[in-house]
Amino acid sequence: MTWEVLNIIGTIAFAISGAIVAMEEEYDILGVYILGMTTAFGGGAIRNLLIGLPISDLWNQGALFILAITVITIVFLFPFGALKQWKKWGTFTDAIGLSAFAIQGALYAASMNHPLSAVIMAALLTGSGGGVIRDVLAGRKPLLLRGDIYGVWAMLAGLLIGVGMVNQTWGLYALFVLIVILRMLTVYFKWSLPYRSLKDANYSRKER
Amino acid sequence: MTWEVLNIIGTIAFAISGAIVAMEEEYDILGVYILGMTTAFGGGAIRNLLIGLPISDLWNQGALFILAITVITIVFLFPFGALKQWKKWGTFTDAIGLSAFAIQGALYAASMNHPLSAVIMAALLTGSGGGVIRDVLAGRKPLLLRGDIYGVWAMLAGLLIGVGMVNQTWGLYALFVLIVILRMLTVYFKWSLPYRSLKDANYSRKER
Amino acid sequence: MTWEVLNIIGTIAFAISGAIVAMEEEYDILGVYILGMTTAFGGGAIRNLLIGLPISDLWNQGALFILAITVITIVFLFPFGALKQWKKWGTFTDAIGLSAFAIQGALYAASMNHPLSAVIMAALLTGSGGGVIRDVLAGRKPLLLRGDIYGVWAMLAGLLIGVGMVNQTWGLYALFVLIVILRMLTVYFKWSLPYRSLKDANYSRKER
Repeated sequence: MTWEVLNIIGTIAFAISGAIVAMEEEYDILGVYILGMTTAFGGGAIRNLLIGLPISDLWNQGALFILAITVITIVFLFPFGALKQWKKWGTFTDAIGLSAFAIQGALYAASMNHPLSAVIMAALLTGSGGGVIRDVLAGRKPLLLRGDIYGVWAMLAGLLIGVGMVNQTWGLYALFVLIVILRMLTVYFKWSLPYRSLKDANYSRKER
Repeated sequence: MTWEVLNIIGTIAFAISGAIVAMEEEYDILGVYILGMTTAFGGGAIRNLLIGLPISDLWNQGALFILAITVITIVFLFPFGALKQWKKWGTFTDAIGLSAFAIQGALYAASMNHPLSAVIMAALLTGSGGGVIRDVLAGRKPLLLRGDIYGVWAMLAGLLIGVGMVNQTWGLYALFVLIVILRMLTVYFKWSLPYRSLKDANYSRKER
Repeated sequence: MTWEVLNIIGTIAFAISGAIVAMEEEYDILGVYILGMTTAFGGGAIRNLLIGLPISDLWNQGALFILAITVITIVFLFPFGALKQWKKWGTFTDAIGLSAFAIQGALYAASMNHPLSAVIMAALLTGSGGGVIRDVLAGRKPLLLRGDIYGVWAMLAGLLIGVGMVNQTWGLYALFVLIVILRMLTVYFKWSLPYRSLKDANYSRKER
């Protein structure tokens, strides 16, 4: 298992996620492809933009593009009697994508000697930026901002890499597994962050 | 007829389109100008960003800026008893803009020796990117992702240029006319892409 | 009073604004931080992107990041019995932020010898760009495009700097105060721009 493999799994997971959301919004087949590709590659594009790498580096990923397009085609043609099945392992591959992309983003930023805040932001943006673009293009409020615990795990990966606690190969693998497990536990136990509503006149803090 | 002319017509068409959408959303006059300018120049900004050209190249288009602002002013003051008339030739100038901008974007990317996928994406983004920004700023789901056939024609232009089938001047003019005709036929015959809805529990494929 | 101070006040004001909107949308605590940071720093990121400065310059603002995070934390924990109080001086700090950021953006663009249109756009985008990103991420139609008079004051600052009418230190301070006053008068007297609705079949121009 190498980082290449993680990158491939992450790309597949996010391409599936974008394609599913597009079909939920009744977008046409071009919309399904665009949303799938945007979700798979958008996080990396935002990361490159913010940490100063050329965005055009995206185009050197020809093999990943073909892979993502193939996966989206399969999803579009898939018999969805088994959809509940998909939701289960879809959450799992998505957690793998989050973890792999967050760690990648943090390593990129750290290797460029950016400060800690940039490393944490790169992890957050690479891990979840594609999903935010997906939600905006689908006319939804971004899940990252209101769902269960998601972005925090990406930021945790960025923090541990940014402070130098994790830098050897075995440590990165352990971190990868840890983030996946934390994300799966979040879904299983329905962990969520506190929020505070200013919707009503009567302002009070509550737990969701 | 030169590419300058096409560029001018495309800019005009997209500026009108953005201004009309802003008025449909009851945005104020500044909103009308911003949405008109964003639609006219946003596609090119995204293209420059993704293929690695400096975005600040935008500012060397002073004459086009003044033209777009003039056109938006006229649209804002226009007596709209004749609106249905507008919709007809508006679709036509929009088709010209899509075709001209898609071909321009593809030529830019091809001249930088980007791979085929980048050329196709540059055509798609330059031709339709401004419209996506317009729809997001108007709080709408992007037409590109769910309307009739639109982005596909831009991608077709990118494909034919990217594989080198069209590279001479007369070929580019022929391609320009072809894309306009295909887009107009789409509107006339209400062609649309297949889609697949995951909205309901009962998943099944349908044609729109 | 120096530009550093203005920059700090502007960052604080916009961080508060983003955090409040996130709580109005019932986003969770991570959403509150992300929206606060995006509103405070998003305008500058867009400005850097469009006028050709590296976006990664953002990361050299470590002290401002810590300040913004501190402010958002305070807002999240604040007892909101006094909210109506907040709205009053919130509008005032927001006006300070708009003015300071618009002038900063215009100075940046002017120092790079961009044409007048770019200077005005840089003022507009730096002053109000963060708010547009905030509104899109909150699933709202951007206030800039439909609210009372806001962006026009930023553009006015850009115009006066771009034509060289204001370039000395005392002139910039006077301009800063002028923009704040104009913005506060807008709110007090409910000034708004004309708009024109194409919502209904019966198109007619009206004042709001």
